[in-house]
Amino acid sequence: MAGSTFGQLFSVTNFGESHGVAIGCVIDGCPPGMKLSEADIQPDLDRRKPGTSRHVTQRSEADQVEILSGVYEGVTTGTPIALLIRNQDQRSSDYGNIAMQFRPGHADYTYWHKYGVRDPRGGGRSSARLTAPMVAAGAVAKKWLFEKYGTQIMGCMTALGEVEIPFQDWDFVAQNPFFSPNNDVVPELEAYMDNLRREGDSVGARLMVGAINVPVGLGAPLFDKLDADIAYAMMGVNAVKGVEMGDGFDVVAQKGSQHGDEMPPTGFKTNHSGGVLGGISSGQPVVVHVAIKPTSSIRVPRESIDVEGNAATVETFGRHDPCVGIRATPILEAMLALVLIDHVLLHRAQNGDVTVQTPVLTMDEGL
Amino acid sequence: MAGSTFGQLFSVTNFGESHGVAIGCVIDGCPPGMKLSEADIQPDLDRRKPGTSRHVTQRSEADQVEILSGVYEGVTTGTPIALLIRNQDQRSSDYGNIAMQFRPGHADYTYWHKYGVRDPRGGGRSSARLTAPMVAAGAVAKKWLFEKYGTQIMGCMTALGEVEIPFQDWDFVAQNPFFSPNNDVVPELEAYMDNLRREGDSVGARLMVGAINVPVGLGAPLFDKLDADIAYAMMGVNAVKGVEMGDGFDVVAQKGSQHGDEMPPTGFKTNHSGGVLGGISSGQPVVVHVAIKPTSSIRVPRESIDVEGNAATVETFGRHDPCVGIRATPILEAMLALVLIDHVLLHRAQNGDVTVQTPVLTMDEGL
Amino acid sequence: MAGSTFGQLFSVTNFGESHGVAIGCVIDGCPPGMKLSEADIQPDLDRRKPGTSRHVTQRSEADQVEILSGVYEGVTTGTPIALLIRNQDQRSSDYGNIAMQFRPGHADYTYWHKYGVRDPRGGGRSSARLTAPMVAAGAVAKKWLFEKYGTQIMGCMTALGEVEIPFQDWDFVAQNPFFSPNNDVVPELEAYMDNLRREGDSVGARLMVGAINVPVGLGAPLFDKLDADIAYAMMGVNAVKGVEMGDGFDVVAQKGSQHGDEMPPTGFKTNHSGGVLGGISSGQPVVVHVAIKPTSSIRVPRESIDVEGNAATVETFGRHDPCVGIRATPILEAMLALVLIDHVLLHRAQNGDVTVQTPVLTMDEGL
Amino acid sequence: MAGSTFGQLFSVTNFGESHGVAIGCVIDGCPPGMKLSEADIQPDLDRRKPGTSRHVTQRSEADQVEILSGVYEGVTTGTPIALLIRNQDQRSSDYGNIAMQFRPGHADYTYWHKYGVRDPRGGGRSSARLTAPMVAAGAVAKKWLFEKYGTQIMGCMTALGEVEIPFQDWDFVAQNPFFSPNNDVVPELEAYMDNLRREGDSVGARLMVGAINVPVGLGAPLFDKLDADIAYAMMGVNAVKGVEMGDGFDVVAQKGSQHGDEMPPTGFKTNHSGGVLGGISSGQPVVVHVAIKPTSSIRVPRESIDVEGNAATVETFGRHDPCVGIRATPILEAMLALVLIDHVLLHRAQNGDVTVQTPVLTMDEGL
Repeated sequence: MAGSTFGQLFSVTNFGESHGVAIGCVIDGCPPGMKLSEADIQPDLDRRKPGTSRHVTQRSEADQVEILSGVYEGVTTGTPIALLIRNQDQRSSDYGNIAMQFRPGHADYTYWHKYGVRDPRGGGRSSARLTAPMVAAGAVAKKWLFEKYGTQIMGCMTALGEVEIPFQDWDFVAQNPFFSPNNDVVPELEAYMDNLRREGDSVGARLMVGAINVPVGLGAPLFDKLDADIAYAMMGVNAVKGVEMGDGFDVVAQKGSQHGDEMPPTGFKTNHSGGVLGGISSGQPVVVHVAIKPTSSIRVPRESIDVEGNAATVETFGRHDPCVGIRATPILEAMLALVLIDHVLLHRAQNGDVTVQTPVLTMDEGL
Repeated sequence: MAGSTFGQLFSVTNFGESHGVAIGCVIDGCPPGMKLSEADIQPDLDRRKPGTSRHVTQRSEADQVEILSGVYEGVTTGTPIALLIRNQDQRSSDYGNIAMQFRPGHADYTYWHKYGVRDPRGGGRSSARLTAPMVAAGAVAKKWLFEKYGTQIMGCMTALGEVEIPFQDWDFVAQNPFFSPNNDVVPELEAYMDNLRREGDSVGARLMVGAINVPVGLGAPLFDKLDADIAYAMMGVNAVKGVEMGDGFDVVAQKGSQHGDEMPPTGFKTNHSGGVLGGISSGQPVVVHVAIKPTSSIRVPRESIDVEGNAATVETFGRHDPCVGIRATPILEAMLALVLIDHVLLHRAQNGDVTVQTPVLTMDEGL
Repeated sequence: MAGSTFGQLFSVTNFGESHGVAIGCVIDGCPPGMKLSEADIQPDLDRRKPGTSRHVTQRSEADQVEILSGVYEGVTTGTPIALLIRNQDQRSSDYGNIAMQFRPGHADYTYWHKYGVRDPRGGGRSSARLTAPMVAAGAVAKKWLFEKYGTQIMGCMTALGEVEIPFQDWDFVAQNPFFSPNNDVVPELEAYMDNLRREGDSVGARLMVGAINVPVGLGAPLFDKLDADIAYAMMGVNAVKGVEMGDGFDVVAQKGSQHGDEMPPTGFKTNHSGGVLGGISSGQPVVVHVAIKPTSSIRVPRESIDVEGNAATVETFGRHDPCVGIRATPILEAMLALVLIDHVLLHRAQNGDVTVQTPVLTMDEGL
Repeated sequence: MAGSTFGQLFSVTNFGESHGVAIGCVIDGCPPGMKLSEADIQPDLDRRKPGTSRHVTQRSEADQVEILSGVYEGVTTGTPIALLIRNQDQRSSDYGNIAMQFRPGHADYTYWHKYGVRDPRGGGRSSARLTAPMVAAGAVAKKWLFEKYGTQIMGCMTALGEVEIPFQDWDFVAQNPFFSPNNDVVPELEAYMDNLRREGDSVGARLMVGAINVPVGLGAPLFDKLDADIAYAMMGVNAVKGVEMGDGFDVVAQKGSQHGDEMPPTGFKTNHSGGVLGGISSGQPVVVHVAIKPTSSIRVPRESIDVEGNAATVETFGRHDPCVGIRATPILEAMLALVLIDHVLLHRAQNGDVTVQTPVLTMDEGL
């Protein structure tokens, strides 16, 4: 495939640029017979959209989604579901100087060399704005997974720059602009961001995303392991530089007697694995950690070149997220949902007739 | 695809089980006209094969590769290259008890629930033995990349359990059984492993793999970013639980002014990005870090169930790697080579006519 | 893939239903740097659109295409090109009775059993209206092929029902509503169709489509032969029941000494092969013949069942093409263009470095 | 994909050359739990193998298949099934002159221009010998389809050169070397072939292949229609130049009132459609007709060029089939089986939860 399609059987083809006419996607392979309307999709788009607090870009986009096809009388028909979001607040004049220079740490330079042409307005195709259609598609996947298996997908921020965010309660995540599962740390996060904006700089973040009630058996031995596809999905999100399943890099110093999750008849006792064994879901919660780099569009001057190779000092003005991690939680949730639904369909294609007498183990611990 | 094929245009289809008749792969899409014989492939297989030191499994396999097709008079013809490795040392009696029980942390349980049947001998399809054909395919990819672009791919171990391995010199990697780029630490590593074997336990590891002389422009905006496909490839290797590009999880606490690699006309000054910007290669070295979990086949008794759901205490005897990370370096190198060659072919398919006046920046710093 | 995406590297994802909000497609993988605007696409859409003569459906659709993405300052950027066509003349009330009954020879019954739900308005997803986005995508492919290789793609009708249409001149094709390359036969065709409409019946047709200036070397040995992909593309067009390459079914009675096209240094002497040898283009014109069945939506009463399995007599009123073959020429041209561009990209991906001293043979005879 | 893999979910990757070490394939995605051994596969290979009568090539190949993986204790495990057939009777000296010249009508010329290198021995990769692994894979698919749905796949010859073969009885097909369903015509066929061999010429053939007990609902609206994939599969078989579904090219002159198969509650009354409506199986028998061209390797002298572009007269000696259609029946059966099983898996992936109250219609008429 040419690259803009995600998923094999529940396939999402993404299109659009940050400041083009519209962005959107086509979902192909959605099972028929599910109730669906824009109202099922909009809430996740609203969680991701810009301009909802002073800590994110002030671009004003309603991100209103329109279903163009694939739904008849409020029910999915099994045919492609096209979703359209018109861009509204394209203030392209902001980006004049960027068109001829390359921001350090940005896709400007690599796009230019790959294609020999690029839409520089708002980062064009490399903008995180293109995650909106994925959030929309993810909402469709989430709904199906929940109705079929009770699967629930949740994410939160676990660190903002140097500030660690100890987990308190999932309910808190929706109560602050940072998707922080900890309300006590919010003032510190706000002060941190306010200071950062004054400096004209940006910062990274760490997020966690996971799922409960994931059926056992999803994923292929090799190469389409469930965790391999999750890593692909997460690393494919703008600015992501690291992905961990379960204990992640902590496994380096672990012993086998410590890492392997014991599994007596009463159920899994721990979840070091993050819900995947040998590339296949175990029924434990799926747990993923993600590292997000600081935005490269900053006011701090940086050394670079222009399109003719001359030295240039780049300072980026315009509207940007000083921490793209802040709005990334619904994106990661959507990508996880898309991986899971694809593997559900792949699994039942090959193994729809499998029956096993062995009981499925439970797992008390949640995400 | 059904899952056992890696890569879109340079496609490797893997087959076999640990204790079956044979393992192997079919490489489809190799460019024609390259000199190739078994002698080009065997060295990497020898680097990966078992039984080369007391610190790895004592299973005795020559891992002799046979080219069945796709090469005529010593030159690739562009048609599928089938590679075959006969299994030799199948001591399946070792695995009697495992067939009816599930090792904590192992794929036993998930395979069973997915397929309702499994080959328990040596882990069957879930065995790391299946990485051998990938190492063979990777050797073909490495050769082509080197001849075409001078691309070189190198890996090493950077931590074994709690023991950190500070980088000294690439030349050292081939001089010890750990792929350690540090000779001074080798006695400590040996003592660590000897102790571990006595305890009947296993341990994790961290590895680095990278490439130099990677052309600029490889990778698609979304979703087939070069780093997304690298993450997929690495997380798909047995026992991997974490993948980082460049600075990886360190980016969480970085500022944008610190992370973005400045790029004056003299070239990139740093390589925090790990060689990928916006999902597309920048010409900087590609740098990847990988976390490998401890093996689940250990002598330490563990709580589990059997296939009927009854409580069982699992102790695994037989021949196993106490640290699969020790033999993983050539595997990670191969997977990186396979991702790179696939993206070279994808890139020139779409962008074969692109010409850009902007000079390509250099990067002095190596891996 | 879930089925609605055509092509591997120049990929077209189609969406929409006959009477939905909109139809369209996303082209992924178009090479960058080509000038493109709606004006390059609209002419082929106009050739295909309904209502242009009394011999086709009287539904009134402007089929005005809008480019939503992938083009910046009039040039393709290499990113997905989304094309949107709003439906305008949905007179869904026409289809009331069809919703509960199955037309013999129509997709009604099979869609219903496959999905358990369907959009019956105008045939929903099974409507030939969904070929419009393919015609639009094909126009993009045609433009690129012509600019790169001088490739030209042409089609015409060669039989309408029992009326054979002997070839006279390509120029005539645009001069009559039947895409007939013969002007003398047009009055007979008109009378034939007028009579058919009075009877409330429909009829089949045979079309030819071909290409000149196709580079040698397109297609893979197996399975993605150029002719195999052409057969897939053509048989995938609504109502097509037969596909022939070159001499097609006439080869059954041919001798090898008659069929094999002699190829002295002066060039190919004949073109029995239709431009493909061993699945790979030879540089001869590509020649394809296609059989199109009569429409199943007719006024003549037919025996069938309703959704509850009761006997039903089906008579279809509303607006329908009595011969879908009449508007099929631009569709077949588009599908051929899409196959060719995909194979050009696939070919240069693998074989971009191939050089051969052997001269390329010419072929005087055109289509 | 690089082209040598057939099928999306039941994927067969083919490898090998006519005179190489071995040929074979890897089946990925076979459902687990089916009994399978070489004895299930060999009979179809024996039907296809050379040397079984004086009317086919006299090359002596046992075509003995070895299962290398994917089967444990006589049962499929759901992991890749590798099948290996060693070549035995490579008499490559026969092909000396062919290496430097191009046979008219043969893949010689196009391979050479595509790859710049080719294995000329026995046609290398372009040889019909590469259909043997597909026959083997098809035997696995046939077994699964029969056990799951009672699906049966049958083929026969319907014309050999100018000799039409009127259908008499399926039982006759196995009783003569031509796969003729008519015993009376066999002497005429034998005389025809004997004469042809004396002339050193070759001839074409027409075959029919079909399936009964195909479940309703297989195939996607567009583009992966069941008939589109069948056309792809059939046109991809060596020497095929035409494919028809059901009435095929006869539909051109049919009226809609004649073509559309009436379907009262008692079942389909006719089968003009060939078992596919709107790209989706209807439950009627699937009926396909295929045109096979005469072999290009003939003793009759033909005008051509050599690799340097000089004029050359080509006369081909060595062992060849004067009519490749004679051995093609099991090949077409296999390809049809592979398409059907792939679509069964695709269908249940998306639509595994669909239930419909409408009864499934029957069809008395067989193939």
